[in-house]
Amino acid sequence: MKNNVDYKLYLVTDRDILAGRNLESAVEEAIQGGVTLVQLREKDITSLEFYNMALRIKRITSQYNIPLIINDRLDIALAVDAEGVHLGQRDIPCVIARKIIGENKIVGVSASTLEEAKKAEKDGADYIGVGAVFPTSTKQDARDVSVDLLKEIKQSVAIPVVAIGGINEDNVSLLKDTNIDGIAVVSAILGKKDIKSAAFCLRNQRF
Amino acid sequence: MKNNVDYKLYLVTDRDILAGRNLESAVEEAIQGGVTLVQLREKDITSLEFYNMALRIKRITSQYNIPLIINDRLDIALAVDAEGVHLGQRDIPCVIARKIIGENKIVGVSASTLEEAKKAEKDGADYIGVGAVFPTSTKQDARDVSVDLLKEIKQSVAIPVVAIGGINEDNVSLLKDTNIDGIAVVSAILGKKDIKSAAFCLRNQRF
Ligand code: NI
Repeated sequence: MKNNVDYKLYLVTDRDILAGRNLESAVEEAIQGGVTLVQLREKDITSLEFYNMALRIKRITSQYNIPLIINDRLDIALAVDAEGVHLGQRDIPCVIARKIIGENKIVGVSASTLEEAKKAEKDGADYIGVGAVFPTSTKQDARDVSVDLLKEIKQSVAIPVVAIGGINEDNVSLLKDTNIDGIAVVSAILGKKDIKSAAFCLRNQRF
Repeated sequence: MKNNVDYKLYLVTDRDILAGRNLESAVEEAIQGGVTLVQLREKDITSLEFYNMALRIKRITSQYNIPLIINDRLDIALAVDAEGVHLGQRDIPCVIARKIIGENKIVGVSASTLEEAKKAEKDGADYIGVGAVFPTSTKQDARDVSVDLLKEIKQSVAIPVVAIGGINEDNVSLLKDTNIDGIAVVSAILGKKDIKSAAFCLRNQRF
């Protein structure tokens, strides 16, 4: 699966914006709408809760043959046999993570500068998440990245580049000349009443 | 190293009670005083900070040939090649952790009931941490365990049993007929001004 990953519409989960709706259903609707990859991102829950949630989400992503990426927690990724792990700049270093998880799994790295992007590629990352490209309310621990810098990063690395941070149906067109491989969204899908339609609309946008 | 582990004086770290003192120095002094095993327990820090701290502590424990156990985070244990991982009842299940970390590493499990203790042994744990045996200010997420229950657990499992929770130089003698393999302490060592002497005194207590 690792060599055929479609990064076009990358969903990052956030249970806080679901307003009580069930995460499993939300992820399934998002996939039905056209999400191509799911990153499970959890904060402030126990490792057991994270593990159990990851197992439940993995059942759905496997059913639709969509890669599941676990945010930060390499051990949870291994425990549920997820397709990969996503590492922020404050997580375990990419080279160490790669040694642990092996060559057959996806390792993604967040980058906010050209230096971080080049380093991630050198360290063996399979893709880079670059942002925040637009102002965001979701805390991403990332500095601002201009569209010009996004373009420069895309031109400077050979691995796929996914833009993240505040992307929605209104501003996604601003990314159209960047040549990026995909967009990562949180609230533009999970914050909407009709999750499936929101995903469908974003999937059919050009960038 | 796994087959010769000495559980007699098991130090669990807590940076909050160090009153600004350096954790690396504190751990080294504790080892010099007689600590036989160190569990690195961290909360509310990033994975990168946890990893870097674990690397620093590992340098010290390796120098003294003392096993280093990482609390909860299997990925950090793998990343620094620690001797093992300690799992609470809210962490990744023991059987899953064992598959990931392999047979050569130590897997410890917290237990507060006879059922949890027997299950941990069945699930392949190398030792059990039983407590809290005494009232404790350090939050251990553990229910109370009487000395009688501690004794019963020790009689019911074949793997080493380490008592934990509020143990200090004044109450450790109450454990003397339990036949346990070791005591785990936090503040009775790290909360003391003279860490090395505190460890030395506890090490020379009978239980
Ligand atoms: Ni993180």
